[in-house]
Amino acid sequence: MKRIVGKHAEHKKLESNILQISQEAKAAKKKYSDVIDATVGMLHREEGNVFRFDVVDDVLHHLNDAETYHYAPVRGTKDFTEGVFDWVFGENAEMIRKYFKYSVIPTTGGSGAISNSFYNFNDFNQKVLLPNYYWSPYQNFALEANVDLKTFLMYDENFKFNVADFKEKALDLAKEQGRLCVLLNDPSNNPTGLCMTKSDWQEVIKTLNEVNKLDIPTILIHDIAYIDYQMKDSKYSREIFEAYKDLDEDILAIVVFSGSKTFSLYGFRVGAQIGLSKSQEVVDHFVRVGDYSVRGRFSSVSQPGINTIGKIFSNPDNKNRFKAEVSVATKLLKDRASLFLEEAEKNELNILPYCGGFFVSIPTKNKNIFKDLVNDHVYVIPMQDIIRVAISSLSLKDIPELVRKIKKHI
Amino acid sequence: MKRIVGKHAEHKKLESNILQISQEAKAAKKKYSDVIDATVGMLHREEGNVFRFDVVDDVLHHLNDAETYHYAPVRGTKDFTEGVFDWVFGENAEMIRKYFKYSVIPTTGGSGAISNSFYNFNDFNQKVLLPNYYWSPYQNFALEANVDLKTFLMYDENFKFNVADFKEKALDLAKEQGRLCVLLNDPSNNPTGLCMTKSDWQEVIKTLNEVNKLDIPTILIHDIAYIDYQMKDSKYSREIFEAYKDLDEDILAIVVFSGSKTFSLYGFRVGAQIGLSKSQEVVDHFVRVGDYSVRGRFSSVSQPGINTIGKIFSNPDNKNRFKAEVSVATKLLKDRASLFLEEAEKNELNILPYCGGFFVSIPTKNKNIFKDLVNDHVYVIPMQDIIRVAISSLSLKDIPELVRKIKKHI
Repeated sequence: MKRIVGKHAEHKKLESNILQISQEAKAAKKKYSDVIDATVGMLHREEGNVFRFDVVDDVLHHLNDAETYHYAPVRGTKDFTEGVFDWVFGENAEMIRKYFKYSVIPTTGGSGAISNSFYNFNDFNQKVLLPNYYWSPYQNFALEANVDLKTFLMYDENFKFNVADFKEKALDLAKEQGRLCVLLNDPSNNPTGLCMTKSDWQEVIKTLNEVNKLDIPTILIHDIAYIDYQMKDSKYSREIFEAYKDLDEDILAIVVFSGSKTFSLYGFRVGAQIGLSKSQEVVDHFVRVGDYSVRGRFSSVSQPGINTIGKIFSNPDNKNRFKAEVSVATKLLKDRASLFLEEAEKNELNILPYCGGFFVSIPTKNKNIFKDLVNDHVYVIPMQDIIRVAISSLSLKDIPELVRKIKKHI
Repeated sequence: MKRIVGKHAEHKKLESNILQISQEAKAAKKKYSDVIDATVGMLHREEGNVFRFDVVDDVLHHLNDAETYHYAPVRGTKDFTEGVFDWVFGENAEMIRKYFKYSVIPTTGGSGAISNSFYNFNDFNQKVLLPNYYWSPYQNFALEANVDLKTFLMYDENFKFNVADFKEKALDLAKEQGRLCVLLNDPSNNPTGLCMTKSDWQEVIKTLNEVNKLDIPTILIHDIAYIDYQMKDSKYSREIFEAYKDLDEDILAIVVFSGSKTFSLYGFRVGAQIGLSKSQEVVDHFVRVGDYSVRGRFSSVSQPGINTIGKIFSNPDNKNRFKAEVSVATKLLKDRASLFLEEAEKNELNILPYCGGFFVSIPTKNKNIFKDLVNDHVYVIPMQDIIRVAISSLSLKDIPELVRKIKKHI
């Protein structure tokens, strides 16, 4: 048969176990009353419905026709871009504005931002460095962009972020290919729940600077999808950005914001990439290729999504209502996580250190864990030697039984 | 300076005159009361507001939380995909179902579909064949996909579709690069307003079959964005698809549907690509790479967009209301086009044959036409040796003056 697809598309085949398992779980739930579905990466209330933010719903349903139906500008609106910037950096926003040049480009969710960045900031067949536990769609973004992934060990022997392995792999890869593009999903890592410390970040940035000094182009993609769901006091939730201050002149940092996670606007496909550098020239390149990818891939981004977010960030009443609702959402996760940890301790189940986000992960040596749990009517996402449990969509009442069943098969 | 971007991204630079001129026109309109803005490719009512479909607005505002906020499935819903299929092919739907295998994949607007298809169905640096008058973002889709464009002459000396030049260029290109990927925007071409006849389509397909017989992979991308805005009786609006019946076994046709144009859902980024082939294997490849691109570029498509369209197509009352509103929309364009043609005749202004869509185009030899018109407070989109007038957003009262001013400078 003729090769109908392009050469670089020959090996693309979607094998997303996450989506597939999620569908199987849904089907099983219709058949059996005791099925526990811990696969869904959306925040749900205890009653089982999606965590809709009331202020989001209000604003969304009061957009006028132009705010709803018109094409959005490629660059979005000031309310959106500056609002996202201030929200993301919080108390560090002024510091970032002082030391960095920046630009905010709306994208089709965090996914759109990472996908574009993989494509724009690597030569074909180069590798992006990321930890050995990662959200599997990163593979899809890479193959779609005709690049590859390379991993370093996320943990050291004490289950802390493995600074030494990061440094070694980063230097090796940078020297090997003459480019370093790093992807870190932090805080509240998906799938592990890890939060890197400020000192971890300082070490990462030291390494980036070291690479950069070798005259090697250096790019940091920082996926902060779960930043608003940390367990620590919100006062400290943006402190990792203090480490950014040390970034060398011509490094490009791309901070990836997810409207899906922060606003439960999963279905709207709205997010942003914030390009930061101390060099205006680097930011100019970021804008040049970023704008181009928006136009060249999907024309523009969701107008109702951009305007809803813009109106929440730019209106103090809306913003306060929103902050209050974020606290409720985080409390929901905190209660589930606490119960999970308590039950885990009771059952002597070892879990990876959890500090926030939608997921708790559990190391396992059982290669058959997924099937064993399915036979027990429990659905989780298996990844290498861990299983990922989405506490985002679990209800408290299911947690004790879930932990017991996991313990039984782990 | 280090090269921060990937090699293939070095020459990307967004120079969309359309968006820029549109912004200039808006700014001018605020300064002067007599500015005529004929740049905007969205359908507007006579009063100047966007043509919102009432049934779209009703359905949209009655979606439940899951239908609004959840991630959409990568493949969309049956209501959406089968609804789009039936709408697009109309009375030919059964014939297509009988002779072809097919799959419908939701995309971020028609743009997302074309962008993905350029990327998936060409080797890097190959060329897509299209007419010499085309919507300029096609260039952006091409460069973003690391492919190029090659043109044939759209018109013969009688301003009919130039079958002979298409055939010559198609065979040349196919033999030169061992692949033929053709993009046609028909009916109601943007920018020219041309509608190819059924016999034009039969000739095109004869050529595609001829290429295919040379054992050369052959792909037709058929952008039907403006299919619902034809001037001919809606009974005949889908007759061009009858020509599809002759397509050879392993040719892939990708029909690109725009939710922006058909539903005024411009800001939602929702559309679809319908892959058709008589070979199941070819359709399997279409699905494999198409699904992958959705996941690998933007994760999924607008959930409210997909559900609104699905609920209109699957509910007979909604569908009837919608059909009635489409007639109103088409009548609006028809009235503007008639007046434009009448005034053009009165002023002896030659325009390209218009049979539908959002745009009327006028040939010109004045290289300074854009500036001359701006000085006269008229904004249009200049393209090579034509100017494009968006009647979609003009009001009737502005047309006589617009035609006089164009005539003055043409």
